[in-house]
Amino acid sequence: MDRRSFTRRVLSGSAVAATGAASLSLAAAPGASGAPSAVTAPGTAPAGGRVRHLRLYAEKLSDGRMGYGLERGAASVPGPLIELVEGDTLHIEFENTMDVPVSLHVHGVDYDIANDGTRLSRSHVEPGATRTYTWRTHLPGRRADGTWRPGSAGYWHYHDHVVGTDHGTAGIRKGLYGPLVVRRKGDILPEKQFTVVFNDMTINNRPGHASPDFRATVGERVEMIVITHGEYYHTFHLHGHRWADNRTGLLAGPDDVSRVIDNKITGPADSFGFQIIAGENAGAGAWMYHCHVQSHSDMGMAGLFLVAKPDGTIPGYDPHHASDARAKRAPSEGKAGGHRGH
Amino acid sequence: MDRRSFTRRVLSGSAVAATGAASLSLAAAPGASGAPSAVTAPGTAPAGGRVRHLRLYAEKLSDGRMGYGLERGAASVPGPLIELVEGDTLHIEFENTMDVPVSLHVHGVDYDIANDGTRLSRSHVEPGATRTYTWRTHLPGRRADGTWRPGSAGYWHYHDHVVGTDHGTAGIRKGLYGPLVVRRKGDILPEKQFTVVFNDMTINNRPGHASPDFRATVGERVEMIVITHGEYYHTFHLHGHRWADNRTGLLAGPDDVSRVIDNKITGPADSFGFQIIAGENAGAGAWMYHCHVQSHSDMGMAGLFLVAKPDGTIPGYDPHHASDARAKRAPSEGKAGGHRGH
Amino acid sequence: MDRRSFTRRVLSGSAVAATGAASLSLAAAPGASGAPSAVTAPGTAPAGGRVRHLRLYAEKLSDGRMGYGLERGAASVPGPLIELVEGDTLHIEFENTMDVPVSLHVHGVDYDIANDGTRLSRSHVEPGATRTYTWRTHLPGRRADGTWRPGSAGYWHYHDHVVGTDHGTAGIRKGLYGPLVVRRKGDILPEKQFTVVFNDMTINNRPGHASPDFRATVGERVEMIVITHGEYYHTFHLHGHRWADNRTGLLAGPDDVSRVIDNKITGPADSFGFQIIAGENAGAGAWMYHCHVQSHSDMGMAGLFLVAKPDGTIPGYDPHHASDARAKRAPSEGKAGGHRGH
Repeated sequence: MDRRSFTRRVLSGSAVAATGAASLSLAAAPGASGAPSAVTAPGTAPAGGRVRHLRLYAEKLSDGRMGYGLERGAASVPGPLIELVEGDTLHIEFENTMDVPVSLHVHGVDYDIANDGTRLSRSHVEPGATRTYTWRTHLPGRRADGTWRPGSAGYWHYHDHVVGTDHGTAGIRKGLYGPLVVRRKGDILPEKQFTVVFNDMTINNRPGHASPDFRATVGERVEMIVITHGEYYHTFHLHGHRWADNRTGLLAGPDDVSRVIDNKITGPADSFGFQIIAGENAGAGAWMYHCHVQSHSDMGMAGLFLVAKPDGTIPGYDPHHASDARAKRAPSEGKAGGHRGH
Repeated sequence: MDRRSFTRRVLSGSAVAATGAASLSLAAAPGASGAPSAVTAPGTAPAGGRVRHLRLYAEKLSDGRMGYGLERGAASVPGPLIELVEGDTLHIEFENTMDVPVSLHVHGVDYDIANDGTRLSRSHVEPGATRTYTWRTHLPGRRADGTWRPGSAGYWHYHDHVVGTDHGTAGIRKGLYGPLVVRRKGDILPEKQFTVVFNDMTINNRPGHASPDFRATVGERVEMIVITHGEYYHTFHLHGHRWADNRTGLLAGPDDVSRVIDNKITGPADSFGFQIIAGENAGAGAWMYHCHVQSHSDMGMAGLFLVAKPDGTIPGYDPHHASDARAKRAPSEGKAGGHRGH
Repeated sequence: MDRRSFTRRVLSGSAVAATGAASLSLAAAPGASGAPSAVTAPGTAPAGGRVRHLRLYAEKLSDGRMGYGLERGAASVPGPLIELVEGDTLHIEFENTMDVPVSLHVHGVDYDIANDGTRLSRSHVEPGATRTYTWRTHLPGRRADGTWRPGSAGYWHYHDHVVGTDHGTAGIRKGLYGPLVVRRKGDILPEKQFTVVFNDMTINNRPGHASPDFRATVGERVEMIVITHGEYYHTFHLHGHRWADNRTGLLAGPDDVSRVIDNKITGPADSFGFQIIAGENAGAGAWMYHCHVQSHSDMGMAGLFLVAKPDGTIPGYDPHHASDARAKRAPSEGKAGGHRGH
């Protein structure tokens, strides 16, 4: 576990190169730092309990989008992937570089009302101002009254709650959202992570027919984090792969009765995640992922999960053919996920 | 367990004061009849098996709404919360005081076709007429063929099925719906209960920006019953708290793989419920709950879960500020939940 | 287990009579081949592992619909129910008898990119051409890395992915879809099976107020396979019966925390299934099933689950009354499910 690894980790999901952001310290992947191998046990989340610090900036992008970033000028849509382990505390020094008030509202983790990120609780941030938001997490366990208290682990997310309306409708529409993963000690760690946000009729605020593609190699353990925002319901579908409809997206074992699915209805602020072995029982290929609402996929809410053979080739995939079909794609943004460092 | 307690219980969710309705006998809360305490085990549901009786009236309210009530002139929207324990039978003497046919159709529990509450089965009620509906419940157990039969426990609901159309579209729109909770022996009992019905673009048929607020004190065990009706899908979100996406809304223990969530997509006639400890890991505050479909929350499908400190104060909450933002709120209806008697 | 039994099985859900299709070999029902009995253990799925073959035709129907069928001239909407057991492989010799390209895309099971059934992967079928699609399934088990791999069991489905648009929007709209059930060895087998596809504003592409009715006798073990397609979200509701919201739709036993439901939100390409004992705790009757979105049911997305007494009578059910209310129903299509042979 070196500093570079968790630095890059927090950036996965953005197009930004790894930086040396100093005080960030997130989940490591002790056993996953070599080449993918089917016979090496995957890494697992360590114990939590650390106090971490992060700087986060809300920015306007030149194209009218708004984004969160770990450095000035480095905002992305979605914002940086933040990972915690149950027991961790995260202090986020949050700066509003924009000319309108903005906030940071988080799902799933613990925060008091002063960290709610709403105008009602006066926990938003005026233009040019800075505020520290504190998110806490906890392990599952028994309460004093004997009942069971769930832990904080889950596929969560954060977003603005004040731009445009008191519910952040304009802020979210323009891109002020990002993924948050909280793991339980022992949870299996992925080798690659991708974030898919169905935001109104876009994926990750990309225009129709320019949705992000994600790249992996057969056998890699890939995590997908799926978030919905905005106005519409969607159904997330992935070709050739499937997952469990439970907390981790992985069946706990033979007695886990969770439904295994490859398609899931979601609405605004729903989030879920899962891990798959790229190409398992399917092989390499250009596998589509898309919203399965027919008009949504037809209007371009579809991208590719590009699973390559170890030699880098993808059978049946002709990027020129695919790009013809996606004339509006910005060529520099074909990859939206990040590696864990190794 | 005294008569007053279960009498008031059935009324929770309505604005109606406790009455002496004679033959009603619902779940009691043996261990919860003192002040909230973190170190006293919560009460649990007793064994079922009783035969209970209830009178229920369908009425037109002066403002055009329609509602169910336990007494004449006492109809509310939502209708009274009805609670049973698996094994109970409930006979409902149902009177239609309106000038159009109406019915009582229930989800989740057992009834024969004569108690279906539909026009097709001729189990509706003409104006001025009375009909007894019988709902039965059963425990889980093995069938004679060795397979497992689920019990009746769940967060269910009842509604009209005939006003306006053969599916009760006008009756439901105007308010003819209510919550039904069936518990399993041993299920943990809450200290407070609130019902949230997303009905078309309203919460509990309240106008936009006049959605109900709910009040609790830090540490209280609060149950929320969430029902959707009408035309639209919604996502229910609660700030600062979360729950398990399973039968009880509570994790059964460390091996329960259910997803823990704070946001859930629902469509018409879906229902779910959960219990939370008010302010757990979050503290006192004015916590928003709302539909997370952005236009829905912007149009007013949002209310407050007001969690007070033991001294009654709510940090950061200015009722005047909040009421400014909710100019249309009817001041007498700020609280929509009921206590269990004690 | 005779050949006729699994031949008829694959046809359930269609209006086509059993045929002698030669090489098909699907799940048998060893213990269910007598009269329904509450004291005989139901049949269970045998071990998988067989290699099966099927011919499938894509056809235009005379009324403008398109369908899949097991023989020329025998296409139905939905297409034939296909059942596999984990470990089975199915080779489908697929012929396109239409004048436009078509494909066969499947959910849930294993296939390589050449069997994806998309234009992007050039795995569609030109007019007049034939192509063999291969679907594989696998058992759950441990991977070499020690993690748990889910099996293929589930309530899945197949559909066109190329007619009209690259997502098959016109093909699906016209009827190119069907159910696929993959069982685990030991899964309980039903006695009757019905498929309900909410496709845009229709059920099984039937016009409004002409939705299919399904017939069973009290005590029969009935399986319902529910699939959604098209543009809209729906909520599936069944009167008088309920099921578990997990893989099988059956609770695994007393420790299964799955929510028991009688209403479920679904979106395009979602699928689920469940088994019920017809009339259990409810008795015989004409039980409605419908989409619970109010305008959808009002416009005719509703049908009947007709549960007869052993003597064939259905209390309170007047077919003439019901057919008055459903003037457009084609009288010859009142039953859409199939028996397992015996």
